[in-house]
Formats: sequence, C-alpha cells, structure tokens
Amino acid sequence: MNHLLTMSGLTLNEIENILHEAEQFSEGNSWKVDHQMFVANMFFEHSTRTRNSFEVAEKKLGLEVLNFYAESSSVQKGETLYDTVRTLESIGINGVVIRHHENNFYQELVGKINIPIINAGAGTGEHPTQCLLDLLTIKQEFQTFKDLNVAIVGDISHSRVAHSNYDALTRLGANVVFSGPNEWQDNTGKFISMDEAVREADVLMLLRIQHERHAGQMGNSKEEYHQAYGLTIEREKTMKKHSIIMHPAPVNRGVEIADELVECDRSRIFKQMQNGVFARMAVLKRAFETQKINELTVQL
Amino acid sequence: MNHLLTMSGLTLNEIENILHEAEQFSEGNSWKVDHQMFVANMFFEHSTRTRNSFEVAEKKLGLEVLNFYAESSSVQKGETLYDTVRTLESIGINGVVIRHHENNFYQELVGKINIPIINAGAGTGEHPTQCLLDLLTIKQEFQTFKDLNVAIVGDISHSRVAHSNYDALTRLGANVVFSGPNEWQDNTGKFISMDEAVREADVLMLLRIQHERHAGQMGNSKEEYHQAYGLTIEREKTMKKHSIIMHPAPVNRGVEIADELVECDRSRIFKQMQNGVFARMAVLKRAFETQKINELTVQL
Amino acid sequence: MNHLLTMSGLTLNEIENILHEAEQFSEGNSWKVDHQMFVANMFFEHSTRTRNSFEVAEKKLGLEVLNFYAESSSVQKGETLYDTVRTLESIGINGVVIRHHENNFYQELVGKINIPIINAGAGTGEHPTQCLLDLLTIKQEFQTFKDLNVAIVGDISHSRVAHSNYDALTRLGANVVFSGPNEWQDNTGKFISMDEAVREADVLMLLRIQHERHAGQMGNSKEEYHQAYGLTIEREKTMKKHSIIMHPAPVNRGVEIADELVECDRSRIFKQMQNGVFARMAVLKRAFETQKINELTVQL
Repeated sequence: MNHLLTMSGLTLNEIENILHEAEQFSEGNSWKVDHQMFVANMFFEHSTRTRNSFEVAEKKLGLEVLNFYAESSSVQKGETLYDTVRTLESIGINGVVIRHHENNFYQELVGKINIPIINAGAGTGEHPTQCLLDLLTIKQEFQTFKDLNVAIVGDISHSRVAHSNYDALTRLGANVVFSGPNEWQDNTGKFISMDEAVREADVLMLLRIQHERHAGQMGNSKEEYHQAYGLTIEREKTMKKHSIIMHPAPVNRGVEIADELVECDRSRIFKQMQNGVFARMAVLKRAFETQKINELTVQL
Repeated sequence: MNHLLTMSGLTLNEIENILHEAEQFSEGNSWKVDHQMFVANMFFEHSTRTRNSFEVAEKKLGLEVLNFYAESSSVQKGETLYDTVRTLESIGINGVVIRHHENNFYQELVGKINIPIINAGAGTGEHPTQCLLDLLTIKQEFQTFKDLNVAIVGDISHSRVAHSNYDALTRLGANVVFSGPNEWQDNTGKFISMDEAVREADVLMLLRIQHERHAGQMGNSKEEYHQAYGLTIEREKTMKKHSIIMHPAPVNRGVEIADELVECDRSRIFKQMQNGVFARMAVLKRAFETQKINELTVQL
Repeated sequence: MNHLLTMSGLTLNEIENILHEAEQFSEGNSWKVDHQMFVANMFFEHSTRTRNSFEVAEKKLGLEVLNFYAESSSVQKGETLYDTVRTLESIGINGVVIRHHENNFYQELVGKINIPIINAGAGTGEHPTQCLLDLLTIKQEFQTFKDLNVAIVGDISHSRVAHSNYDALTRLGANVVFSGPNEWQDNTGKFISMDEAVREADVLMLLRIQHERHAGQMGNSKEEYHQAYGLTIEREKTMKKHSIIMHPAPVNRGVEIADELVECDRSRIFKQMQNGVFARMAVLKRAFETQKINELTVQL
C-alpha cells in the first residue's frame, strides 16, 4: 500500500524516485489511469492551494474526484474518521487525500483501511507533499541538496512544513538552520539570527505567520515582526547572488516578506505552487498505479 | 417519468426489476449514457455516505455531476424548491437527486417538473434508495424475502428507513417486527422485546439514534440505551447461526451496537454501503435511460 | 486576453459576435476544447443559477471544472484576490469565473494575471453574462434591438443587471426607460410611471428586490410594493400583444410579479435561464479557444 504519511517514513531512495517522477511531469510527461478510478479529497481544515493543487493533479491523471467538505458531512454527526474512510472505501473510492487538524490522524487508519492514504497536512505535524514540492523546487535550482545552506524562518514549533523539511533536507545532505522569535523555537535544530540567516542561506524559506493558530498571542505587531524576522527590502540586498526565496503561502505581504519582493527575481513562491501539481501527480501515480489487482478483488 | 419517490409507489414488479439490475451491477456489469447528460445532487441536509454513494454511482454511469449545496445557493435568498429545480431543468440538467428535511418535498415538483426526481431521504418519511440497498443485501444473503424474520430496532417513529423497509419487506413476504423504547414506537407494526428480537430475527436491522433530531430528549444515557436496546456482545451470542446484522450507518459505536461487533462476521454494515452504489446505479439507469427523446425535445 | 469584465468594454461588433455564437449553441451546435483545460469558478457570493449555468456551459465545452467556495478557502486566512487567482494560474488553471461583492474586483487582476477573467457579477456594478443572455432572449424574440421599447423596473441604483443592460441596449438602438420607487432611482436614464412602463414596453424587465442587500430599509411592505411597482394580474392585461416579460431571477413571487404570471405565455423567465448556458458557452469559447499557445508556454 503506497501511502504517503510522513517524510520520515520515506527512504532516501523513495524520495529520489518521487522527485524524479515529478520532474518528468514538470517536463511535460503525462500518465493516466487505464480504467475508471476514484479519489476523495477530505479537507477538515480550510485550504485553497493544496486542495486545488491536488484536484488539478488528480484530473491530469484521469482520476474521478470526489470533494468531501467536513462541514456538510456526517462528521457533523460525530462519526469517527475511521468509519468515514471505511465508508468511502466501501463505496468504491480507490484512495483518499486527507488534511486534518490532528498530527497523527492516520494512525487509526493505517493497517485497517485497504486504500492508499495521502497526508495533505496534519495539524502541526507533517505536510509531506509540501515538502516534496519544496525539494523539487530546490533540486530544479541547484541540482543537488548536498551542503546547501537552508534557513527556515518563523513559527518553527507549530509548522508542519518546518518539521517535514528539516527531516528530509538533513537526510539529503543539506545544512538546515532556523530563525525566528524565541517563543516559537523548539528543539528540532540550531537557531541563528535573522540577519545571519539571510546572509548565509542558499535557500531562504519563510514560513507563514499563522494568525488563525495563535490569534492574539503574537507578542509583536505585524510591522514589528517584519522588522525583526521578515525579509525586508534592506535584508534582501544582503542575500547571496544565487540564493532563492521560498514560502509555502498564503503569504502575509509586509509581514514575512516585503510586498515588493513576493514576485522578485529570486522568489520561487509561485514556482513552488506550480511544482506542487507535479509533486502531487508523482505521489498519486505511486499510490494508484499498483492498485489494479486490489481494486478488482474488492469489486468481485 | 421514472421518478423514485417512495417505496410504496413502486409495484413489486418494479422493485424486483430494480433489484435485478442492481445485482447485475454488483456482479460487474456496466452501463453508460450514450451522450452527455447532467445530474444535480441537491442536499439540504448533511450526508456523507448517501451523497458520495450517489456521486460514485453517477460517475460510473458516465453522468456529469453538479453538486448543489444548500448553504451556498439562492435557497438562502428564499427561493422555493420548485423554482430552484425548475431553474436546473431550464439550464439543461437531466435529473435531480434530492435530500430534504420535509417528508413530502416532492409534492410541489411532481407533474410540474419534466425531469426525473430521485428521493435521497425525506425528513422522517421515506428513504427509498436506502431501502433498496437493504433489500439487495438481504436478497444476496437469503435469495428470497418470503417468511424471513426481520426485526427493526430503534427510533421507529422518526426513521425514514424503518417506514420504507416495513412497507417493502411486508409486501415481499417477510415478517417484520419492531423493538425499541416505548416513546419511539408508532402504530406501524408489532413491537416485541429486544431479547426476543435478537433471538428470532434472520435479519436484525439496527437504526441509528439520531442525536441531531432529538438532542437532549433521550431519556436514557448512551450506556443505558446500549444495555436496554443495543446489540451487546452477550445478546449477539443468542442470534441464530445464519442471522445477519444490518445498520444504515453512521453507527454510534457502543450505543446501537457494541464497538467490537461493527465488523464481525455476521455484520453486513459495510456491505450495505457497497450495495448502495449498485442500487443507486440501477435507480439512475431507470431514470435516465428513457430520456433521450425528452432531452432532445427540450434542447431543440 | 479575452476577458469579459463589463458590457461597456465590448464593442458592438464583439457583442454581435458573442450573440451569434450563442445563437448557434442554442440551435444545437457544439464545440469542445481539443486538449485538457481547467476553469475555476470562484463565487464569493451566494448563487444558484449563475454558478450552475456556468458549470453546465463549461462541461458542455469539455472543460475540467474546479469549484472554489470562498467559505472553505484561504480567503478566510486573509489572502488577497490577486494572490488567490495568481495561485490558481500557477497550478495550471486556464481561466477563472468570478462573482465578487466589489464592483471593480477585476482591477487588481487585469494586466497582472495571464489567464482570462470572466465577471459573473460584481457588487452593484456589472453582470455582463446576465446582460448577454438577456440580449440573446430579446434577439430571439424580435430579431433586432432597433427602436424596441425596454422598461427596466425596480431597484435601479443597486442593480448590476440594470446598468449592464442600459448600456448595451442603448448602444444597440433600443429605447430604455426605468421605473420604480424614487429612492432607488439614480441618474442613469429616464424614469416613468409603472403603469406607463407596462403599457409601452415591448420588453418589460423586472428586477429582483434584493432583500439581502437592503434588509429592513425597504419603505414599502411586499404587498405595497407589488401594488405600486409589481406586475399585477391587472397590469399585465394592459401590455401590448407581443410584449414579453423578463426577470433575472430568483423571483420573489407576489412581489415583483404576480405568482400566476411567472410562467405565463409572455414570460421568458425560464427561457432566459436556458439562454444563460448558451451565452456563457459563447463567452467561454471566446476566452479559451485562443489559449493553446499561452498554455503550452506556461507548461514548458
């Protein structure tokens, strides 16, 4: 069963295979399922880019897409996630893409559900397809991860992006450091000052300030955050010539990054979104291509 | 016009034809519309399994699916159901699937709307596709309905499943009895004790406690309900060897049925969901296959 | 870039070309995109007929449809419209259909977004596809617009339909006048009494009382409005023999128009909805058919 649950659960070899497949899709390769197959997108948290990115990827692979919105479903009636997914499996869904507010939502599913599960963002835990699209973007730029300096800036402790990326990039040979306010540090890796991070990074990865997660708790105002930990116009000038800017988006313009820099030459922010489709196509192909026999077994 | 509004509106012959078609779909038969046709799913109440089951069935038949969510529609502007459906007919929709909180929602439509209407659950009235999938599940198990003992347990008075099933199963020759708390009885049929129901039934059909319908009114706590009217581990041991357990789901684990029994050998709960797709394919085929001439008339 | 933003931005020649194409679709012509293309429907306000009408039109053209609901998207996280649309462009969407509460929502997009934008209703400003379907309905009836008397009745000052139609019909040679309560007049054109409007009009175009826009502000009760400015059964009898009734819907039965007249012989209300699909097909074809080269450029 080719789930995609966490980056740490993938071997380096598996990561490289997915990135290779994604690169091929980015170069115009196509692949379609050879019979009618169904995927359900289950989003228990708001999302624009991830949900739509998955839907485009799914339709490019020829999958039939069911969109499941938590707010108009029986989850409102108190049904467990296991029973909901088991239901979808029973009605013939061949795979599920799930965004959920719990870090380990998939633990009640794995081993009991016989269709692949793709993690589209789990609480403050992992967000592996975001990580894979980040890796794809970095690989397109530098061809290798070995000895690259990657600085991740922002609310590290609550960021699923930070955790997935730290794990994968470190294993791939990059030097990953963090920056950001003290209260958002955790013990994952080394913290450095923002000015140093900007100067030294080949890849400067800014995280979104998730107002919706800590409404009102933020010690600094937006402008204060921007001056202390944002990529200001002044700081950008200290970046190395070939360094790139990344951000998982949605961007808070003028907070994590100056408005004028969002689409500057070294920004890869919208490129990341484009790559998101290719990375998800690779993940979905991996999950669905081996399924023909399983599916027939269930049918008959 | 091949609507599906109520079970009582179908002759025995029509029921048998639908079940026969559904069985053929369950054995792997396929059928597709031969030109582009549109169906709209209009759900005015929350639903996971029914809505998704219809959508899978529709896509297996090659229909184009429009999902209509009451909360983001002009129904918010006070439009009548008639005007909404008439609108969908005008824009070229070839059939509508409707779940509605009113028992007789279809009465303002029938005879005035020229596209088939499929009842996907009407208030506390009927839920004919649930009944058809239940019948299919029983038929697969016992080949006949004649003289089968069927016990339906729970909130009979508010259950559209109970009403549809009582009517159809009785006409098909089964002996249908009820069990459950006194305050949820109505005058539809004979009530017996839970222990007797469990011992005597060939088909033990548990109904969902609909907390959302009578929040706070429930005299017993969940655990008390389970002891009094639930299928406990002890009661299950008194069932006949070949008896089966059914439940329309979503299940309240530990209330209507012990958690451990939901997927036991004699449970057909997830089988029912699988059959739901086949039953709905049969109902949709019946509604759409005769429509070619109508549709062309409207178009030209 | 073949956007559709306003009627006033279209030349008479462009309007005639769109109407010609729409008429051909109404006569059974078909056209499909020749490779997989994606459209996103972004509705920031409630809608039944416009949204579903676009979706049917899109699917008739063979487009892949993504439905974007503002309430379950990152717009909730404060993202700008520009960033949201730029995201959709990045993930490979080939065009967007947008309904928005701001009159000039498209100004932050045009010139910066490289995919066509179709205005599906903008605040109290324009609603060009509604206008085009109205024009198509009038043209089917009278073959010409020259010297036709068109009376538009209701809340002129808040009506995007009134503004789009006044501009286009006047340019096409029709005489357009208004009627309705004093407080809803603006300085767009000439106001006359309701009785005169009904007697003189070839096309009597009733506007919806938008309770949701001015809840509680309405000076008259519904019945008083009906007597003063509604098409009552008595007034209808004073209409010219060949005059027709139009309404953009949803209709408030018994307010703008007597219940019994909604589907009378001279009503074109549901015909307008049918024409909406054809008008939108023409607009979408115009937007998507020139896109092949652009799209390939983005892909490669």
